[in-house]
Amino acid sequence: MGNTDFECVHSVVIPPPQPFLKSLKNNLKETFFPDDPLRQFKNQPPAKRFILGLQYVFPILEWGRKYNLEFFKADLIAGITIASLAIPQGISYAKLANLPPILGLYSSFVPPLVYAVMGSSRDLAVGTVAVGSLLTASMLSDVVNINDNPTVYLHLAFTAALFAGLLETVLGIFRLGFIVDFLSHATIVGFMSGAATVVSLQQLKGILGLSHFTHATDVVSVMRSIFSQTHKWRWESALLGCCFLFYLLVARYVSKKRPNLFWISATAPLISVILGTLLVYLTHAEKHGVQVIGHLKKGINPPSIMNLEFGSQYLSTVIKTGFVTGIISLAEGIAVGRSFAMFKNYHIDGNKEMIAFGMMNIVGSCTSSYLTTGPFSRSAVNFNAGCKTAVSNIVMALSVMITLLFLTPLFHHTPLVVLSSIIVAAMLGLIDYEAAIHLWHVDKFDFVVCMSAYLGVVFADIEIGLILAVGLSVLRVLLFVARPRTFVLGNIPDTGIYRSVDQYPNTNNVPGILILEIDAPIYFANASYLRERILRWIDDEEDEIKSSGNSRWIDDEENEIKSSGKTSLQYVILDMSAVGNIDTSGISMFEEVKKIIDRRGLKLVLANPCGEVMKKLNKSKFIDTIGHEWIFLTVGEAVGACNYTLHTSKPNLASSDELKKCSSNV
Amino acid sequence: MGNTDFECVHSVVIPPPQPFLKSLKNNLKETFFPDDPLRQFKNQPPAKRFILGLQYVFPILEWGRKYNLEFFKADLIAGITIASLAIPQGISYAKLANLPPILGLYSSFVPPLVYAVMGSSRDLAVGTVAVGSLLTASMLSDVVNINDNPTVYLHLAFTAALFAGLLETVLGIFRLGFIVDFLSHATIVGFMSGAATVVSLQQLKGILGLSHFTHATDVVSVMRSIFSQTHKWRWESALLGCCFLFYLLVARYVSKKRPNLFWISATAPLISVILGTLLVYLTHAEKHGVQVIGHLKKGINPPSIMNLEFGSQYLSTVIKTGFVTGIISLAEGIAVGRSFAMFKNYHIDGNKEMIAFGMMNIVGSCTSSYLTTGPFSRSAVNFNAGCKTAVSNIVMALSVMITLLFLTPLFHHTPLVVLSSIIVAAMLGLIDYEAAIHLWHVDKFDFVVCMSAYLGVVFADIEIGLILAVGLSVLRVLLFVARPRTFVLGNIPDTGIYRSVDQYPNTNNVPGILILEIDAPIYFANASYLRERILRWIDDEEDEIKSSGNSRWIDDEENEIKSSGKTSLQYVILDMSAVGNIDTSGISMFEEVKKIIDRRGLKLVLANPCGEVMKKLNKSKFIDTIGHEWIFLTVGEAVGACNYTLHTSKPNLASSDELKKCSSNV
Repeated sequence: MGNTDFECVHSVVIPPPQPFLKSLKNNLKETFFPDDPLRQFKNQPPAKRFILGLQYVFPILEWGRKYNLEFFKADLIAGITIASLAIPQGISYAKLANLPPILGLYSSFVPPLVYAVMGSSRDLAVGTVAVGSLLTASMLSDVVNINDNPTVYLHLAFTAALFAGLLETVLGIFRLGFIVDFLSHATIVGFMSGAATVVSLQQLKGILGLSHFTHATDVVSVMRSIFSQTHKWRWESALLGCCFLFYLLVARYVSKKRPNLFWISATAPLISVILGTLLVYLTHAEKHGVQVIGHLKKGINPPSIMNLEFGSQYLSTVIKTGFVTGIISLAEGIAVGRSFAMFKNYHIDGNKEMIAFGMMNIVGSCTSSYLTTGPFSRSAVNFNAGCKTAVSNIVMALSVMITLLFLTPLFHHTPLVVLSSIIVAAMLGLIDYEAAIHLWHVDKFDFVVCMSAYLGVVFADIEIGLILAVGLSVLRVLLFVARPRTFVLGNIPDTGIYRSVDQYPNTNNVPGILILEIDAPIYFANASYLRERILRWIDDEEDEIKSSGNSRWIDDEENEIKSSGKTSLQYVILDMSAVGNIDTSGISMFEEVKKIIDRRGLKLVLANPCGEVMKKLNKSKFIDTIGHEWIFLTVGEAVGACNYTLHTSKPNLASSDELKKCSSNV
Repeated sequence: MGNTDFECVHSVVIPPPQPFLKSLKNNLKETFFPDDPLRQFKNQPPAKRFILGLQYVFPILEWGRKYNLEFFKADLIAGITIASLAIPQGISYAKLANLPPILGLYSSFVPPLVYAVMGSSRDLAVGTVAVGSLLTASMLSDVVNINDNPTVYLHLAFTAALFAGLLETVLGIFRLGFIVDFLSHATIVGFMSGAATVVSLQQLKGILGLSHFTHATDVVSVMRSIFSQTHKWRWESALLGCCFLFYLLVARYVSKKRPNLFWISATAPLISVILGTLLVYLTHAEKHGVQVIGHLKKGINPPSIMNLEFGSQYLSTVIKTGFVTGIISLAEGIAVGRSFAMFKNYHIDGNKEMIAFGMMNIVGSCTSSYLTTGPFSRSAVNFNAGCKTAVSNIVMALSVMITLLFLTPLFHHTPLVVLSSIIVAAMLGLIDYEAAIHLWHVDKFDFVVCMSAYLGVVFADIEIGLILAVGLSVLRVLLFVARPRTFVLGNIPDTGIYRSVDQYPNTNNVPGILILEIDAPIYFANASYLRERILRWIDDEEDEIKSSGNSRWIDDEENEIKSSGKTSLQYVILDMSAVGNIDTSGISMFEEVKKIIDRRGLKLVLANPCGEVMKKLNKSKFIDTIGHEWIFLTVGEAVGACNYTLHTSKPNLASSDELKKCSSNV
C-alpha cells in the first residue's frame, strides 16, 4: 500500500498574525490596484512625479514627444480611411437612435479629439455604436414620444450621454473597472449577436421604405409591424437596398480574405453613399418612394450644455439609460483597446481608459454629441490601415469637421435605404454563431448564458437579455461556491501522491481511511451542504465496506487483521489544499462535523490547510479541538500517520510526540 | 535543490467525455438533492414505496407506531410547560404585530397540530415569533392604517401568512432550501440582535403606559416619539414593568445557571401574568393609568379563509411581507430544528421541514392564525422539559384550546405592561454581543456583515438591514472569485513538496522557475485580474533577479552557469490544484497569457489541473497549444522536468518522449 511510510511529518504553519490595518490595506490594494498602476511613481522626486502624473492623465504628452513624420504619414492614411467609414456610419447610427443624422457627424468630431489627448490605446477609433444607439432609442422612447417631442428627446439623449460619461469616469477613478468583467465573454457574444439581429430587423423599415414602424425592439413586434403593412412595401427601395447590401457584403468578404485589401471594405460605405446619392439625384427617385436624408445643417457642433435636461420627470430614465449604455459601451471599448494592445504588445490600464471614455462622453454631451465609444469595426479598419498613434483619430475628426463645414449639402439626396444597408452589413458581421458553437463544445453553461442573452434580447428586450445573462453568470459563481465538489482521493500506485478516484481510475483506496477533497472556500453558502455531503460520503464508505464483506481490506493484509474490528472505517482525512478561505459559518460546520464523526468513533484529520484557513482555525480554537497533531502538510503524511496508529493497535491514542517526530525541522 | 530528480513523470488524465444529459443529471442531483433524500426508496416494491412516501410526508405515521406511555408522560409535562409559556407570549407577540391579542392564542392552536403531523423534528415547539410579528406590523402598516382599518389590516396579516406558507412550501418542494443558507450565521446574529433591540425599544410604549406611538421601527423615530411625550409617562405602569422585568430576568438567570431548574424560567411569564392580573383586579389599577387587555372572545379559531384579501391595491405589499417574513421565520425554524436534531443525533431533511412549515402557515392562514415558525426560546424550553416527540406540540395545542374555550375571561384584567416585560425579557436574550465579539476575533468580514445587519435594522429599517447583510455576504463570495489570491511557491527543504513562500518562510526558491498557485476557479469575473496578476508576478521575479545580480542562482550552482543567459527566468509553473473549474473567458485568458509568456521567451507549464479543467482545456484545444507534455501531475514533477531541460542546455526542446518516460504507467 503506497510508499508513504510513517517516517517524518512536517507541521503546518500558522502564519504570524498581521496587524488588522496592514492586512486591510493589502486586501484593498489587491482589489483595486491589481495592476499596480502607480509602480512608476515610486522613489521619484516630486517634480518628476508631477510630470509622470500629467503624462498618466494625458498620455499624448508622453508619446507626443516621440512623434515623427513617418508616424504622421501612417496616421494620415488611417485617419482618412476611418473618416470615410465614420461619416456614413455616423449618419446611419444617429438615424437608428432616432436622432437627427447630423448628430452622427457631431459625435465623430469632438469625442475623438478628447480621446486622442486622454486615451492610451494607439489603435482605437472613436465613434458611435449601433447597440448603444438602439439602446438609447428604446430606453428613452419609454418616457418621451419622439414624434411629439423631438427636442426633449434630443436633450435627453445628450443628458444620457452625460450620465454615461460620469459613470465611466467614476468607475475609472474609483478603480471599479472590474465591474465590466462581470460581462463575461459568453454574455457579450450572446448580447451582441442578439442586438445585431434586432438592429438588422429594424432596418427592414428603411429597406422596405416604410414610414410607420414599431418602437419595440423584439422580433415579434417587428415582424407584426412589417407584415401588417405589406401593401406599403416599396419595391424600388427594396431593390436598391438589396443591391447595396450585396455590394457591401462582397466588399467585406474580399477584405476578410485578403487583409491588405482592407480599404475595399473600409471605403465601401462611402462609395455606397456616393453612388446612392448620385442615383437619387439623377433619377429623382425621392419622388418614387425612396426616402432621403434631406437638409443637413452646415457648421460644427453647437454647444449643448444648456440643453441638458435634469427634470425629475425624466431623470430616473435618463440615469438608467446613461448607466446601461455607459457600461455596455465601456465593455466594448475596453475589450477592443485591450485586444489591439495585445497584438502590438503594449499595455493598457483599463481603469485609466475608463476615465478617458468618460471624459470623452462628458465633453461630448456638452457639444451636441451623443454616446460614443471605441467600436470594434472602426478600430479594426484603423489597425489594418496601419495607424501608429491616436493622431489618426485627430485626422478623422478634422475630416469630419471639413465635411460639417462644407460638404453637408451633398448628403441631401442620400437615400435612407443605403444607410440601412450599411447598418445591416455591419450588423451581420456581429452575429457570431461560430463563437456560440464553440461555447457549446467547450462549456455548456457558458452556452446557456450566451443563448439566454441572445433570446432575451431578441424576444423580450435588450435590457432583459442583459440582466438575464449577467444574472446567470453571477449565479454560476455563487453555485460554484454553494455546491462545491467533493472528491474521494486514492493513492496513485508506487507514489505518495493522492488524486481523485474519478479522474484517475487506477488509484487504490486506502483501507480504513476515507480521503476527501473539497474544492471551494467553505462559506455560509455551502456550510450546510458540505456537512450533509461529508456525512453522506462517510455513510457510503461504511455501506460499501459492510456490503463488500471487507474484501478489499483482506486483499491487502490477508493474514493479520481478517474480520477484526479494524476493517471498518477509522479515519476521515479532509484535503484542504483547494479551500482558499473559511468563514465563521464554515468553522461552525467543522465543529458539528467533528462532533458527529467523534460520536461515530471516527477521527477527523486535516491535510494542507492554507495560511488563511489556519489563521481562522487558530483564532476560533478549532485547532485545539481537532488537535494540532492531526493537521498534516500533505495527504501522504496524513495517511502515513493514520496507518501508523492503525497498525500499532492504539487508534486515536498516538501521542503528539510520536506523530511529529521531525516536525521541528520545518 | 530539492530531491525531485527527473526520474519518472505521471501524466494528467483527461476524464472520459460524459454524455451531456448524464452530467447534467448528476449536476442537478448534487444541486438539489445533496442529502439524497430518496435513498430509502431505492430497490423497493411499489406498495412499500407508497408507504414510505406517506411516512416521508407525514412522519407521524412512522414514529406514531413506536409511541408508548413513557414517551407520553414526558411529552405531557413538556407540553404543559410550553403552553404556560405560549399563552402569555402569544398574546404579547400579537400585540407587537398590532393584531388582536386573541390571535396569539389562535396561532398556538392550529399550527402546532399541523406541524405535529408533518414535521420531522422531535423538539421544535411551534408558535409566533417576535421578529416576524414586528416585521408584519411594520411592512403592512405602510399600506393600511391600523387605527382606520383594523379589519383590513387583520385580513392582510392572514394573507401575508398564506403567502409565507406558499413560499415555504414551494421552496421545499423545489428543493430550493439552500436559499436560506444565504442568510449566513453572521447575518442572523446581527439581524436578530438588531430586531431584538428594536422590539425592546418598542416596548417602552407599554412600559411607560403611552397610548400614542410611532409606527416606525428605527431607533431615532422611537426615541423622538418617547421623549416628545414625557408628560404622558405613567409611573405606575413603569414601576410595575420594571418589577416584572426584574423577576423575569432573575428567573432566566437562575435557569441558565442550573438547567434542571428550567421550569422557573419557563413558567415565569405565566406567573407574571397571573400576578399582574390579580394585582390589577384587586387594586383597580386600570383606573390609574395601567392599560389592560380587555375583553377576549371565547371559543376556538373561527375560519378565516373567506377573509383572505387579494385586492390589487395591497397585493404587492402582502406578497412582499409574506416572502420576507416567510424566509426569516424559515431560517429560524430550520436552524432550531437542526441544532436540536444534532444534539439528539437524528437527521432532519431541511427541504422536508420547509414543506411542513409551509403547510402549517397555509392551514393557519385559513384558521385565523398569523405567521408561525419554530421559535428558539420555546423549543429550548420544550427540549429542557424532556419532550420526546411532536406530541408535546399536541398537548400544548390542547392546553391552548382549553384556554380559548373556558379561560379567556381571566385575561380581562391582565395589564399590557406585563406583556411588554415578557417581550423585553425574551428579546434581551437575543442580543448576542458575545457572538459579535467572537466574529471580530475570528473573521473581520463576518463582523462587518453582522454589524451592517445590526446597524441597518436599528437605524434604518428591518428590511434594509437584511438586504445590506445578504448583499455584503454575496459580495464576499463574488470577491473571493473576482480577486483570487495567487501565491509564489517554494520548495520545502529535503522534500518534493512545494508550498506558499508566505506561509512557509523556510522554503527555497527554485532558480529559473517561477511557481504560482491560483486558489479559485478561473471565471469571467477574474480572468482579467489573473492575467494582470500573473504578468506582474513575472515582472517582479525578473526585476528581483536583475537587481540581486543573480546571486541566488550562483549560490546553488556556482561553477557552471555563472552569468550565462540561463540565470534568468525560464519557466512559469502554474499550480492548478485549487482551480476547481474554468470557463471560456478563463481559457481565453490562458491563451493570452501563453502568447505573452512565449513572446518573452518563457515557457508556461501547468501542474495538477483537475478533471473538469482538463476536460475544458482539451475541448478548447488549449492542451495542444501548451503541449500535453507540459502538464504535470505534481509541482515536484514539473520542476523536475524543467530542471532537466534547463541543464541539458536545450530548453523548450525536450521531446515529449524524453519527458514522459513512464507516463504510460499511469
